Amino acid sequence: MKRPVTLFTGQWADLPLETLAQKASQWGFDGLELACLGDHFEVQRAITEPQYVQSRRDILNKNNLKCYAISNHLVGQAVCDPIDSRHKNILPAYVWGDGKPEGVRERAAKEMMDTARAAAVFGVTTVTGFTGSPIWHLLYSFPPNDFAEIEKGYEYFAQRWNPIIDVFEREGVKFALEVHPTEIAYDFVTTRKSLDAINNRPGFGINFDPSHLIPQFLDPAAFIEEFADRIYHVHVKDSKRYLNGRKSILGSHLKFGEAMRGWEFVSPGHGDTDFESIFRALNRIGYMGPLSIEWEDSGMDREWGAQDALAFVRSRDFTSSTLAFDAAFSSDKKTSPAAS
Amino acid sequence: MKRPVTLFTGQWADLPLETLAQKASQWGFDGLELACLGDHFEVQRAITEPQYVQSRRDILNKNNLKCYAISNHLVGQAVCDPIDSRHKNILPAYVWGDGKPEGVRERAAKEMMDTARAAAVFGVTTVTGFTGSPIWHLLYSFPPNDFAEIEKGYEYFAQRWNPIIDVFEREGVKFALEVHPTEIAYDFVTTRKSLDAINNRPGFGINFDPSHLIPQFLDPAAFIEEFADRIYHVHVKDSKRYLNGRKSILGSHLKFGEAMRGWEFVSPGHGDTDFESIFRALNRIGYMGPLSIEWEDSGMDREWGAQDALAFVRSRDFTSSTLAFDAAFSSDKKTSPAAS
Amino acid sequence: MKRPVTLFTGQWADLPLETLAQKASQWGFDGLELACLGDHFEVQRAITEPQYVQSRRDILNKNNLKCYAISNHLVGQAVCDPIDSRHKNILPAYVWGDGKPEGVRERAAKEMMDTARAAAVFGVTTVTGFTGSPIWHLLYSFPPNDFAEIEKGYEYFAQRWNPIIDVFEREGVKFALEVHPTEIAYDFVTTRKSLDAINNRPGFGINFDPSHLIPQFLDPAAFIEEFADRIYHVHVKDSKRYLNGRKSILGSHLKFGEAMRGWEFVSPGHGDTDFESIFRALNRIGYMGPLSIEWEDSGMDREWGAQDALAFVRSRDFTSSTLAFDAAFSSDKKTSPAAS
Amino acid sequence: MKRPVTLFTGQWADLPLETLAQKASQWGFDGLELACLGDHFEVQRAITEPQYVQSRRDILNKNNLKCYAISNHLVGQAVCDPIDSRHKNILPAYVWGDGKPEGVRERAAKEMMDTARAAAVFGVTTVTGFTGSPIWHLLYSFPPNDFAEIEKGYEYFAQRWNPIIDVFEREGVKFALEVHPTEIAYDFVTTRKSLDAINNRPGFGINFDPSHLIPQFLDPAAFIEEFADRIYHVHVKDSKRYLNGRKSILGSHLKFGEAMRGWEFVSPGHGDTDFESIFRALNRIGYMGPLSIEWEDSGMDREWGAQDALAFVRSRDFTSSTLAFDAAFSSDKKTSPAAS
Amino acid sequence: MKRPVTLFTGQWADLPLETLAQKASQWGFDGLELACLGDHFEVQRAITEPQYVQSRRDILNKNNLKCYAISNHLVGQAVCDPIDSRHKNILPAYVWGDGKPEGVRERAAKEMMDTARAAAVFGVTTVTGFTGSPIWHLLYSFPPNDFAEIEKGYEYFAQRWNPIIDVFEREGVKFALEVHPTEIAYDFVTTRKSLDAINNRPGFGINFDPSHLIPQFLDPAAFIEEFADRIYHVHVKDSKRYLNGRKSILGSHLKFGEAMRGWEFVSPGHGDTDFESIFRALNRIGYMGPLSIEWEDSGMDREWGAQDALAFVRSRDFTSSTLAFDAAFSSDKKTSPAAS
Amino acid sequence: MKRPVTLFTGQWADLPLETLAQKASQWGFDGLELACLGDHFEVQRAITEPQYVQSRRDILNKNNLKCYAISNHLVGQAVCDPIDSRHKNILPAYVWGDGKPEGVRERAAKEMMDTARAAAVFGVTTVTGFTGSPIWHLLYSFPPNDFAEIEKGYEYFAQRWNPIIDVFEREGVKFALEVHPTEIAYDFVTTRKSLDAINNRPGFGINFDPSHLIPQFLDPAAFIEEFADRIYHVHVKDSKRYLNGRKSILGSHLKFGEAMRGWEFVSPGHGDTDFESIFRALNRIGYMGPLSIEWEDSGMDREWGAQDALAFVRSRDFTSSTLAFDAAFSSDKKTSPAAS
Repeated sequence: MKRPVTLFTGQWADLPLETLAQKASQWGFDGLELACLGDHFEVQRAITEPQYVQSRRDILNKNNLKCYAISNHLVGQAVCDPIDSRHKNILPAYVWGDGKPEGVRERAAKEMMDTARAAAVFGVTTVTGFTGSPIWHLLYSFPPNDFAEIEKGYEYFAQRWNPIIDVFEREGVKFALEVHPTEIAYDFVTTRKSLDAINNRPGFGINFDPSHLIPQFLDPAAFIEEFADRIYHVHVKDSKRYLNGRKSILGSHLKFGEAMRGWEFVSPGHGDTDFESIFRALNRIGYMGPLSIEWEDSGMDREWGAQDALAFVRSRDFTSSTLAFDAAFSSDKKTSPAAS
Repeated sequence: MKRPVTLFTGQWADLPLETLAQKASQWGFDGLELACLGDHFEVQRAITEPQYVQSRRDILNKNNLKCYAISNHLVGQAVCDPIDSRHKNILPAYVWGDGKPEGVRERAAKEMMDTARAAAVFGVTTVTGFTGSPIWHLLYSFPPNDFAEIEKGYEYFAQRWNPIIDVFEREGVKFALEVHPTEIAYDFVTTRKSLDAINNRPGFGINFDPSHLIPQFLDPAAFIEEFADRIYHVHVKDSKRYLNGRKSILGSHLKFGEAMRGWEFVSPGHGDTDFESIFRALNRIGYMGPLSIEWEDSGMDREWGAQDALAFVRSRDFTSSTLAFDAAFSSDKKTSPAAS
Repeated sequence: MKRPVTLFTGQWADLPLETLAQKASQWGFDGLELACLGDHFEVQRAITEPQYVQSRRDILNKNNLKCYAISNHLVGQAVCDPIDSRHKNILPAYVWGDGKPEGVRERAAKEMMDTARAAAVFGVTTVTGFTGSPIWHLLYSFPPNDFAEIEKGYEYFAQRWNPIIDVFEREGVKFALEVHPTEIAYDFVTTRKSLDAINNRPGFGINFDPSHLIPQFLDPAAFIEEFADRIYHVHVKDSKRYLNGRKSILGSHLKFGEAMRGWEFVSPGHGDTDFESIFRALNRIGYMGPLSIEWEDSGMDREWGAQDALAFVRSRDFTSSTLAFDAAFSSDKKTSPAAS
Repeated sequence: MKRPVTLFTGQWADLPLETLAQKASQWGFDGLELACLGDHFEVQRAITEPQYVQSRRDILNKNNLKCYAISNHLVGQAVCDPIDSRHKNILPAYVWGDGKPEGVRERAAKEMMDTARAAAVFGVTTVTGFTGSPIWHLLYSFPPNDFAEIEKGYEYFAQRWNPIIDVFEREGVKFALEVHPTEIAYDFVTTRKSLDAINNRPGFGINFDPSHLIPQFLDPAAFIEEFADRIYHVHVKDSKRYLNGRKSILGSHLKFGEAMRGWEFVSPGHGDTDFESIFRALNRIGYMGPLSIEWEDSGMDREWGAQDALAFVRSRDFTSSTLAFDAAFSSDKKTSPAAS
Repeated sequence: MKRPVTLFTGQWADLPLETLAQKASQWGFDGLELACLGDHFEVQRAITEPQYVQSRRDILNKNNLKCYAISNHLVGQAVCDPIDSRHKNILPAYVWGDGKPEGVRERAAKEMMDTARAAAVFGVTTVTGFTGSPIWHLLYSFPPNDFAEIEKGYEYFAQRWNPIIDVFEREGVKFALEVHPTEIAYDFVTTRKSLDAINNRPGFGINFDPSHLIPQFLDPAAFIEEFADRIYHVHVKDSKRYLNGRKSILGSHLKFGEAMRGWEFVSPGHGDTDFESIFRALNRIGYMGPLSIEWEDSGMDREWGAQDALAFVRSRDFTSSTLAFDAAFSSDKKTSPAAS
Repeated sequence: MKRPVTLFTGQWADLPLETLAQKASQWGFDGLELACLGDHFEVQRAITEPQYVQSRRDILNKNNLKCYAISNHLVGQAVCDPIDSRHKNILPAYVWGDGKPEGVRERAAKEMMDTARAAAVFGVTTVTGFTGSPIWHLLYSFPPNDFAEIEKGYEYFAQRWNPIIDVFEREGVKFALEVHPTEIAYDFVTTRKSLDAINNRPGFGINFDPSHLIPQFLDPAAFIEEFADRIYHVHVKDSKRYLNGRKSILGSHLKFGEAMRGWEFVSPGHGDTDFESIFRALNRIGYMGPLSIEWEDSGMDREWGAQDALAFVRSRDFTSSTLAFDAAFSSDKKTSPAAS
């Protein structure tokens, strides 16, 4: 049995869902991971207008697509970030409000609770997203950090998110954090600390996305094995390092696509991610959920790329063997495969 | 002209030949390398029941498959091994008998002679297999080896196998040893020594299989060039090293597929083998025999994998140029390709 | 929009154009880069016989092929080379004449001027080719070079080629030097010096061919960015290094295809060239001209290879994104893709 | 002639200058780069108490040490940083004052001007230090940056520092920024932009320190050649990457010395810096100033390390050849070295 | 404080202890790890003749040497090995006896108990050594292993060694197994399993020796951190891999020093071991015991090498920092080192 | 026993021998390899003036230096080169004469015969040098080589050099070719062909110099093992590759020391040569002759470098073990070193 391959709609929010669904269906996708952006999935309408939810279902059904997860990355970001002008651009107006930081964070938290409720109404049990981080800006310890403050950052995250996860757990929905720089968890160490901070409660897990691990020189397959029981959703996305001694892995404050950047997001299969090892690790831990292509590549045509990415995933996503190649010898020596 | 691609049946011995042949044919294979396992090819019946041989031919013909080689790896293993309980599980009951080591070895030798006879009756001129080794267990010299004993090991191999090769040569059949750990020959040095021990007689050559060289860090294409005149048959099989400083290349006494193993057999094209260099080397030495896929990958569905492997081989197995791109200049300057 | 993929006819000069055009068309090529070899494109006939040019057009049209460039590599080589017996084999008889070096060089220069005229008549605005070099043989400075003589070599090149480029510019045709060992320019340094020697005049640019950069350990994508405004034509050709400590990168005075050579030309996609980086660099500089496959691989069947190369290029030649993945947030936060 | 080797006193501020100078002298250092920390060099006293400056000179003279540069890294940091509680710990009380950000920045700027004056009084022409950065916290563009704001960051830096450099230039002293994460310049791209922002005025250059480039995968020797005319001072300091797929190059918000950090500062010669290439590059650009060992290694005893580092530098710091090995052949063939 | 550097006497058993002690002292060693070989340390005499022990002490004292551990590798090997003729050559005659396997194993076990007693008499609290292994010969699973038998191997080891460790613990002596191919533990996986098999009892730990990990591609520093509380003794010994595609990492059944071997033991510092990382790991876990040079290099003069190895260790064995380079800022900002 | 370390005087020909000998002696060299340059060793005087030879001996003796070989690289170069103006600068006036190529070659051949005679008079049995090459300029086969001409090149070499070697063999002196680009032999393939061309006669062997192999990516230690019986002399010289994708391994027609060169000669130990493997290979083949430092590094002071190089060689040149570490077990188990 193969895993369904879905398209994350975040990078296509300029298209109406109707249009995008048609395209995705024609290209051969099995479903969509709907982003709470544009008209793709609107949280407040979903929990207040029954016919809205049905309209989303209709579009999917007509195009023979399924939905396994909805995404609310941008609102989640505001839950425990220090708020600045950049957040205005990524939040719905009613969450931004007057922009006073504490109010923004509170409204963002409420919106995430509502996202859990909306998902439940829609019949989806996974919400992917971001958490924000109160300590990301202390990444490089100069002026020297007071490391007690770092520890407090994890506690603050727990205070902010525990009430949200309460709602998720009540609704039977799981939140899957995309481990990512600028979030509370962005690598092995910080993911372990974040999970510990909330006592590893089951309502909170991981939206695995290798593209954020590659620029950090982390091993994505090892990450899957390390956090096996918290892999709730998978993004298929790739990055490539362009290090030649003159380009910094830190990115040089440059936009994606500028020639001097030290790394870039690229279409899956065009970067440094070893997807075969990832799929084998997913096989080993028994993950059978969707493989959701989050397509982003500043150097490739978007529609060409989405199709290329889908073909790539289909050709690499094999399932595990059900045979042990040398176990059968003792029962009947003549019918066993030889381990040679 | 392309080389035929066959499927080695050893890892499929749980299926009746009839079933397997149908599948292989549908998948597009050109033939089968029949293993002396299950009902695939039974040596004693082949040399005593004429209709048995015909029945094997019928199955192949009906499915438009050819047979270029039969395999008797497991019985060959017993010819010069120290015998222990593991051999009971890989030998036919009539070869194992009472299990007394010397008797087992003698019956195994006789069975290998019969395999040559059976191949001849069946019209096949190559038998692939193992030899066993009297000295494999002395691999790591501690307690320190008496190296004279190592030299005696090669002589013992020659004593045991020369009479068998006599029969092979009389029958017009060649034996092709799969160079492999636990056999008398497993690398460049030991292959050279083994061939020398039997005076490089033509009845004994090599079943080239790169998957056993990769975990030893050997160069498979160089192996082909080194032993060019003894490459009698080719297995297409792959391995991958998973070395991260915590997994040992020696395998840690773990089963294939366990997460901590330092290397694994994987489906062709999914590992560390540079098959393009191998095919170029085969072109250079003029090998035009079968490419026999020995499919084994503990992390991949067997049927998906066999088809993936076949497509992989077809896409990589090109033949050599018949043009020299810069030789023609002297005869007619106007019709020659430019080496630019 | 995709770039057209053409086949360079130099390595197929043993076939009449009619035959080759049929094959190329069937294989799916968009056009041909006609070599001045065999009957493919004859300079003197093109400028003197109107019906000759029409006959070339007819063959192309009948096969639905376009021509974006013609090649006259071999005659160009003689323009500033020290002439020896090897040149006789690569030049038309009327250029070689009595073989006295200065006369050969003068006739070669005139033939290159005529090539510009012929291209103009034919309606093609690019001529690819070589320049020769008065200093190539001084590559390894022993006996020690008088480096003033090296500088004089660039001046000599300028003296010999400026009058030719005068004609090119008058005819509205560009000359595209294939940067290549044995030419005046073969790497970053010498290309910069050569372009400077002719004051970077626009009539003279580069036929980019990565296969000559790979054996020198140069970065082809960086070469494109460095000489962005002089990339007038592109060859798709590949090389592979076979360095194992016993094979020299210098080639050992061996023919292509001999086992001990340290590097070889190989079919595109089978070597060490990172074509993805090349295509991304071409996207970045806005090159939309032909990708001309110059097919040469001493270890692969030519017709199998041409088709394999075409499929390879088609699968890798994507166009650039027209979206900035994170730029839209400020205008309308709800329809922007998330950079996550 | 060898370059002087000095010890940067910043990491030894717990010791009185008298004690440290004795040690440094015994170990064999040629001089000290005095930090404005502890009693090593106090700016306000230097410009107001003539005998204070003399007291510093006396200590140096008594120990046969020279001073080529003073450092005021910490105060410089506050000039254009967003100020937070971490700055309180690195600033003199009279600069921190009431801690209101704008006031802190203004007092820091004034203190840097006074540092130039103090250096002039002391007879030293180089001040090393930091600048701070208004945009460092926007390093990873999520929430997506408004990149116009990045550009404004460089302008802000220029506004804040130009008046300071005015004083430096008047006093005949140069400011040498240590290119470093959290500063306005931390890699090739940002250094170029920063220098451009102040019109490459000569009063502002670079304190080259390779240890901050190594974790970014930058090439320190290339950095020297790129910014050759702005290398005003050199720190000898090393870093080592410990990347194994589980440790992040971003540092995981961990303290130096914790086992899971992806990189560490280490004693010179114990890390990934290729000092030989650095010294050759310094030879090529003609830098003959001090090599100042900034010693920091959380896993090594400080005094053992300082001596080890000094011995390391002495053994690697060779001067350039004054002979061209093959140039002399034309003048007198019998006395020339052979390039063989 | 530096760790003592000792010389393991096993490779010098052809010299009387008196002679060796003089040499080691002159070369500058701090002590000897006495092997139970030759006259270096005789177990039975040590527990029966009080003046014998004193004679060993006298030799050491006269040469100003200490002893921190004695070694009885060879007898330990016989405790749970399948016994063959090779063991005769490494055992005292009274342990070998009639050579019947079970008797040999029993006498070897008793001798190991006596070694604990002898160490106690001699005042030494560590005995280094081997354990043997009942399953080593099953390393490469062909004929396919019954993996239940592998598990039984660990149990057998526990049965054989628990009574021995009982004596060790009673005597206040620890046994330190040298993790090594042919022993029950030779890598991460098997060391963990072996320690578990005896319930991690404290009387049994590890004689860390990186030279046996290098040919397996294991990370010695990670091994130290993984088994930090069981590192009871340290051997300084090195290995080098010579893999060129023709030499097997398995060793080809060749003696050390033969040109075609894939790896060799080499003098410390001449191989692939990263000793700096090892010493930093030892610092981190707080190991302050001896660094015992086990010198073995088939390509280097023994006496030259021992001195070279000692100098190498002395130059690399630094102790850890007692300062945190950025912790002091909060207490007194003016005396703290800057983390820059 | 250690090998003597000598200094090749070719790069010091601007100094009188008297001066150089004093320096070399003070630095600690054991001897000089005298170049036929300047007043170091003049061939014609040596065979005609008995007191001249004595004067050279006196200088050496006074400084306690030995001479094991003399060098006549430059004259040898002219023996089978195509002669051009560069040769004038490297030849004595009486060899260059009127500069007509054939005459130059003949006089060069005679001078080499005289060099053999001079060496014999001087009591030295090795002459190092070059051969020149009639085919070097055909290195890159474009215009395409007639490969029959390459073969003729080796024959031509044999014709030119056989008469010279006749004299060498008569005089009891050996000629040692420095395998080097621009010579008849410059890598494995061409060395084998050159030796074959003269029937492997013993009077002609190799002056091993790894610095010419490194830029070709050849393995110097493997070269020693391949041509073990023809290693007559050894140069210690190093090279470093500076390949960054922009610098060509072919050298770009640039002088040594220019920043864009792809490789450089560097002082021994500062480049890419693995001298330890070289010394182990020399041990294995039993070479006990001089290690002659040919010092050349355009980026390092010559006198600093010569001393650094000598210290480097002394620290790396160890002799082989005379013990087999595991062979002694059978004779006396108690006195044998343990292979553990």
